[in-house]
Amino acid sequence: MSKMKKLENKRQTGCPVTFGLDTFGDKWTLLIIREMMLKGMKTYSDFLAADEGISTNILADRLKHLENEGVIEKARDPENGRSFTYSLTEKGYDLAPILLEIVTWSGKHDHGPNARTSVLKKIQNDREGYEAKLRSGKPG
Amino acid sequence: MSKMKKLENKRQTGCPVTFGLDTFGDKWTLLIIREMMLKGMKTYSDFLAADEGISTNILADRLKHLENEGVIEKARDPENGRSFTYSLTEKGYDLAPILLEIVTWSGKHDHGPNARTSVLKKIQNDREGYEAKLRSGKPG
Repeated sequence: MSKMKKLENKRQTGCPVTFGLDTFGDKWTLLIIREMMLKGMKTYSDFLAADEGISTNILADRLKHLENEGVIEKARDPENGRSFTYSLTEKGYDLAPILLEIVTWSGKHDHGPNARTSVLKKIQNDREGYEAKLRSGKPG
Repeated sequence: MSKMKKLENKRQTGCPVTFGLDTFGDKWTLLIIREMMLKGMKTYSDFLAADEGISTNILADRLKHLENEGVIEKARDPENGRSFTYSLTEKGYDLAPILLEIVTWSGKHDHGPNARTSVLKKIQNDREGYEAKLRSGKPG
């Protein structure tokens, strides 16, 4: 049984934390959402090129899972009828505050020399405006 | 190589989302934090009794991981010198806003008949006060 199959076999404890984690509580799932929401990435090959090096089988599994959960939508690419693009639904964009809190937490606790702070600065400057930008699909 | 070993082998891309997910981006890890932060649970057997049915090997692995990451601390139980209690560090309590956003998201999107809303109501009534209560170690 694959990991996502197990996640989909929800225990329905009714706990809202569990509900959320069953939907997106997996490192790769949230990284795909990051690619879409913070970086404006749309295609399978975009996601495959992410710095963390997601494998094709995990990527395909997580995209299917997110589609089944109604977090993302898959559509034919208008510019190339043989490929697909992925976009966040409202349910997906509603994950923005969670992502922003993760960035804020890491901004406080990542003392590594490589820690990137561009998104953190946008949040600190104008959180509301930045969230609105993300929701408009133009992370900028 | 265990899953957590892999997570600990951080790729150091510098991305704050990845940094956060390497620390707590795993369903079981966040469920342990939920047990501690929202329910005031402290012991190995408390965590083992959580509704989701975590297995002993996953629980031991995740507790070790969270301790290594400085999110929780392990100490001898003052009431029973042969057992241990776990508590959140400041870095751990700083995860509160992430948990509260997960609960808020699920409150909006979980339309299941079992969805529990007691924590959601506390957030909606007085988010700041509720977060302060959590940070005091008394979720109430």
